[in-house]
Amino acid sequence: MNTHISLLGCGLMGAPMARRLLAAGYPLTVWNRTRFKAEALAEAGARVADTPAEAVARADIVITMLEHGGVVQTVLFDGPDAAVHGLRAGTLVIDMSSILPEQAQAHATRLAEADATALDAPVSGGTLGAEAGTLAIMAGGDEAAFARARPVLEAMGRPVHVGPAGSGQLAKLTNQMIVGITIGAVAEALLLAERGGADPAKVREALRGGFADSRILEVHGQRMVEGDFAKRGSMAIQLKDLNNALHAGAQLGFEGPITRLLATLYQQGVDHGLAELDQSALFKELQARQHTGEA
Amino acid sequence: MNTHISLLGCGLMGAPMARRLLAAGYPLTVWNRTRFKAEALAEAGARVADTPAEAVARADIVITMLEHGGVVQTVLFDGPDAAVHGLRAGTLVIDMSSILPEQAQAHATRLAEADATALDAPVSGGTLGAEAGTLAIMAGGDEAAFARARPVLEAMGRPVHVGPAGSGQLAKLTNQMIVGITIGAVAEALLLAERGGADPAKVREALRGGFADSRILEVHGQRMVEGDFAKRGSMAIQLKDLNNALHAGAQLGFEGPITRLLATLYQQGVDHGLAELDQSALFKELQARQHTGEA
Repeated sequence: MNTHISLLGCGLMGAPMARRLLAAGYPLTVWNRTRFKAEALAEAGARVADTPAEAVARADIVITMLEHGGVVQTVLFDGPDAAVHGLRAGTLVIDMSSILPEQAQAHATRLAEADATALDAPVSGGTLGAEAGTLAIMAGGDEAAFARARPVLEAMGRPVHVGPAGSGQLAKLTNQMIVGITIGAVAEALLLAERGGADPAKVREALRGGFADSRILEVHGQRMVEGDFAKRGSMAIQLKDLNNALHAGAQLGFEGPITRLLATLYQQGVDHGLAELDQSALFKELQARQHTGEA
Repeated sequence: MNTHISLLGCGLMGAPMARRLLAAGYPLTVWNRTRFKAEALAEAGARVADTPAEAVARADIVITMLEHGGVVQTVLFDGPDAAVHGLRAGTLVIDMSSILPEQAQAHATRLAEADATALDAPVSGGTLGAEAGTLAIMAGGDEAAFARARPVLEAMGRPVHVGPAGSGQLAKLTNQMIVGITIGAVAEALLLAERGGADPAKVREALRGGFADSRILEVHGQRMVEGDFAKRGSMAIQLKDLNNALHAGAQLGFEGPITRLLATLYQQGVDHGLAELDQSALFKELQARQHTGEA
């Protein structure tokens, strides 16, 4: 267990992941653009670095957990402080951020040129999954890279190797497709129940345990029933995810009529001012149609 | 536990439900149109009746588990052997078949005229849920009727009272909406994964435990990955369920664009010869579009 790990990005997801790695006994160096978030981990045993390049200098494995593909590119490659300038030969770089598959493939190519190995390994499960170490982890890259990453990933969740470089990001897009569509399914179901005079909260409860059961019915269905659309995810991000899936799909000759319809519906919700509400607010967008009869 | 129960309909679902009731210690009389299916339950302790009217003569609670609303109407009301002619005053009739909400409401009215009480209580969970006694049970009717039914229903699964007469059937339609749409979500996700070079079986496995997880991903996702579309449910029944939801919705001023799209997609699958395959064969219908580019 003397694998040295460097974690770049200590935000809502990165911080609890860092705590899991420390709890598992890994020596850990952390870096964050706003330094105080990294410093909060010092107490738990992390070393805090000033730059990405410094953070990765002693690392066997580098983990990035950043906001989007542009930030990952900047932190890894752009400018004199970028991680690539500090990497030792043979370092494994695991990007657990959610970025486009084509970006992940480009990063893998550039890392190979720097004598490093890449694995894309985005997650699903949110901050609760990160804290509990139960994240679903979708990994793309070489079999050998996955084998090397596996024990480290298992400190944070349940990793599965789904295919070559970029496949982890592709799997994450499919995750977001299912999430976005299932939210629509639950919303329409609860709206029909409500219009027919049934109690939507009771219907949700009744459906748990049958074939309609899902994490979305459990978590987002509860938000719909309570009318609690405070932002955890957001309509804007759900829309971006669906558009990214359609974008990746278009390059592959993929035709997804359901994904396309849902992108349209989330777009309409965003247009109607719901962008910064939780994505379960698709319920509100669909509810508004019940009165106008808009098709 | 001396509540006498009569069960009308001993098919794929009714038979294991009868066994759960017998195991719970209820005196049980059974009837089935094709008598040998009822006789199979005699060994487990059931009395076998010749007609619905005879079956219900000593019952405190009558349970119907039949193929559709027309059959329920026939067994309860049509002809001299119909159950209504044997019912004692005050009998509780629980229809656990899946029928239209408006049919359930009409049956409740006719049963009230015969001094009986009605509860509509359709289920989700399939034959496995019936055997294990873990069915999701959605109950519509009076609070008092539900309270009286609850211990009996608990021998078969997890009952929830969702609203007035017809609400149980409405909840079942919402269950089928979520099932039908989520199958579409999982199908599109696995198809995109496949086209992008990821392993769909591994992607399904990776997504378990994240926010995309559902009974459908577990059960029907597995069928898609294995290409095993042998009939359990069927495309034809899924289409009928979605059309019934849209029919019930139309009467309530409900607008469900996602349900509408899925009805169109299952219809196209049926038109393309997939009617008698499992409803997870929507995967095949969507897969075929990837090659033709059909919109």
